Amino acid sequence: MSGSYTFQDEAQRHLAAGDVPAYMQALGRAARAAAVELRRADAGLKNRALDAMAARLAASKHRVLEANALDMQRGKENGLDSALLDRLALTDSRVEAMIDGLRQVAALPDPVGEIDEMTYRPSGIQVGKMRVPLGVIGIIYESRPNVTLEAASLCLKSGNACLLRGGSEASASNAAISNCIQEGLADVGLPAGAVQVVATTDRAAVGAMISMPEYVDVIIPRGGKSLIERISREAKVPVIKHLDGVCHVYIDTTADPSKALAIAVNAKTHRYGTCNTMETLLVDAPIADLLLPELARAYAQHGVELRGCERTQALLPQAVEATEEDWQAEYLAPILAIKVVDGMDEAIEHIEQYGSHHTDAIVTQDYSLARRFMAEVDSSSVIVNASTRFADGFEYGLGAEIGISTDKLHARGPVGLKGLTTQKYVVFGDGQVRQ
Amino acid sequence: MSGSYTFQDEAQRHLAAGDVPAYMQALGRAARAAAVELRRADAGLKNRALDAMAARLAASKHRVLEANALDMQRGKENGLDSALLDRLALTDSRVEAMIDGLRQVAALPDPVGEIDEMTYRPSGIQVGKMRVPLGVIGIIYESRPNVTLEAASLCLKSGNACLLRGGSEASASNAAISNCIQEGLADVGLPAGAVQVVATTDRAAVGAMISMPEYVDVIIPRGGKSLIERISREAKVPVIKHLDGVCHVYIDTTADPSKALAIAVNAKTHRYGTCNTMETLLVDAPIADLLLPELARAYAQHGVELRGCERTQALLPQAVEATEEDWQAEYLAPILAIKVVDGMDEAIEHIEQYGSHHTDAIVTQDYSLARRFMAEVDSSSVIVNASTRFADGFEYGLGAEIGISTDKLHARGPVGLKGLTTQKYVVFGDGQVRQ
Repeated sequence: MSGSYTFQDEAQRHLAAGDVPAYMQALGRAARAAAVELRRADAGLKNRALDAMAARLAASKHRVLEANALDMQRGKENGLDSALLDRLALTDSRVEAMIDGLRQVAALPDPVGEIDEMTYRPSGIQVGKMRVPLGVIGIIYESRPNVTLEAASLCLKSGNACLLRGGSEASASNAAISNCIQEGLADVGLPAGAVQVVATTDRAAVGAMISMPEYVDVIIPRGGKSLIERISREAKVPVIKHLDGVCHVYIDTTADPSKALAIAVNAKTHRYGTCNTMETLLVDAPIADLLLPELARAYAQHGVELRGCERTQALLPQAVEATEEDWQAEYLAPILAIKVVDGMDEAIEHIEQYGSHHTDAIVTQDYSLARRFMAEVDSSSVIVNASTRFADGFEYGLGAEIGISTDKLHARGPVGLKGLTTQKYVVFGDGQVRQ
Repeated sequence: MSGSYTFQDEAQRHLAAGDVPAYMQALGRAARAAAVELRRADAGLKNRALDAMAARLAASKHRVLEANALDMQRGKENGLDSALLDRLALTDSRVEAMIDGLRQVAALPDPVGEIDEMTYRPSGIQVGKMRVPLGVIGIIYESRPNVTLEAASLCLKSGNACLLRGGSEASASNAAISNCIQEGLADVGLPAGAVQVVATTDRAAVGAMISMPEYVDVIIPRGGKSLIERISREAKVPVIKHLDGVCHVYIDTTADPSKALAIAVNAKTHRYGTCNTMETLLVDAPIADLLLPELARAYAQHGVELRGCERTQALLPQAVEATEEDWQAEYLAPILAIKVVDGMDEAIEHIEQYGSHHTDAIVTQDYSLARRFMAEVDSSSVIVNASTRFADGFEYGLGAEIGISTDKLHARGPVGLKGLTTQKYVVFGDGQVRQ
């Protein structure tokens, strides 16, 4: 621990001198040293740290709320819009939810140390794969201050040190939360470098964080598409990306109409702003005249604007003409594009051409079509007869979610604790040598 | 298939016009289209393609050997050294081994479609993870022409399209092998774009291949460290890297001396040029005076040069003084650095500081030390009481190996067919919606 405190002092000196790259390097060194200690920490110690943070946050709730009030006041002065202010705001119940969240993460099984596929080989050695932490994780996020604690708890539980860089509008809140985290770490004797909240709003800190592969093993950006694209472009460290969700539901002719109706309405209207919300509905031609008018009535009740292909417009005169942009759009709004297709092959082709490989669903009673859709659609979640809104770490039973990956390598789809780990090979022998 | 042939014609036109970037883009488009077909190919079809390639290669063996003779002649004229010429040379038995290799890959289980961790969730949906191809894989390698067929077969078996860029010195051999591959694909009706050997020695082809994320999902460079570092630095596509192997064996005081001797000799002398060869031996002080003189005699018989710390030199006067560079060296040669340490903690610290996180072993009879070493050493392979030379896809039972990854994300250690796949979530419901 003394080592970590030395790093912290050094970091503070660089920060005071305005040398942001040197400050970030000092944080990186502290994180790397802490990662070695965390790798060795058993589940009990990590859970005690999470519980200690929860206790410290409960005891400091008023200070966190005071800091947040400061951020809110500054946000209002700076003219932040109401959606942003809502994400920034902490209330007593939101802080309670953060405390609960810490205890829930403590209750999750520890993925570290799990050994899979252990077998004896003809040479007499035993080989298996052991799950181990990645090392140091850098997380770059925007306004919501509760992400600070959520990210810290998931990284800690999975045995990783982390560098957390939140939005500048939440800096006072994040500093207050960081204090609780540091107190919790110290309570159980874990190094301060295990969780470090970047204490400058200077944008150079982000550039430095994504350019030090010697100290950071992976970057997880959480925010809008443009932030994530910029970070991916500039990073010299691997990035787990979450880009867009242009999700589809395809309703086949054999679909149970009541299930199709429920799923299509839920996938669009359950929440508009989430990445697993349906943006384009594909309807098999023979069932379109039965289903589309009824669906349109349901969408009208929710105030959803409809845009459609020619065949859709023939059935639903209220639908605006859908353009090429509509098929590519992630509306994140009460707007839906509808296309009538001739069978599943056309639906799959449309999904392949316009989709973002995030989450796509089929509604069908046909066994063989379900089986083909599942194999042939190349998306991070492929769903048969359920709403796209299920594509979520909690719904999938991961117990937690640090994000949803639209990458194919390492982690794909909802990322829980396991996505923050890797596997190394472990070999047990009794003197074996290669012949 | 007509689509693929159109792409091939277009590619040829660009190549004839000397427009390498446009040529590579055409190959990329063909690969992406072929990847969609390969995703849908069942194991039977893929295996038939591999068998057809084997038959075509057997029938065209003389043409492949003639082409190779041309490469060899040109190589000699260009003054290639004997090691490089040996890697370039094909003989009747090497071609037979390539044919056998194809049939072995055909006999491996197909990882695609495997579903893991399928469970019912409280919502009533069933969720699991299905193994699926990555898509398009770009492989950049050096002189050995048999890599062309090996890479093609592993990519095909795992359902991926591939772009293969071999060394310019093997261009005639690779073109002849490419013909056999194309004939085999055509025999079973798979698209020509499934396996494409880059038909230009222009270095711009590499730059283009690593800069088209729209067509290539991952790059696997196989070659020297400087090639891999350059590609990783410049790539706009994820890279699965294989950097250096600075591997250690630590002999604890409780080690069985005969096992320690066998392992330390095998790990160094079984082969000098491989990445899993031991480069530094760490010996616990209390066992050093017993073990080191005997070890030194064994190494002397193999002509291994010894470099040691002061305490090693006190026991082995023939050892040269080891410098800071020696602790970091991947010799790939009959040279060994030796350090006497005071216990396992010092050994682990040394490995953490100087190792490359590739493969590290302990020789011990102490249960608790073995358990700690296994948990605390952060290497892609951690071995107890066996030679580091076991860190190999075949020895681990992967059935094949496309390389050894020194990365932590996606694939770590020996990479077999599974490392060329990813997992998507599959969900089965019966009308469920999010509440």
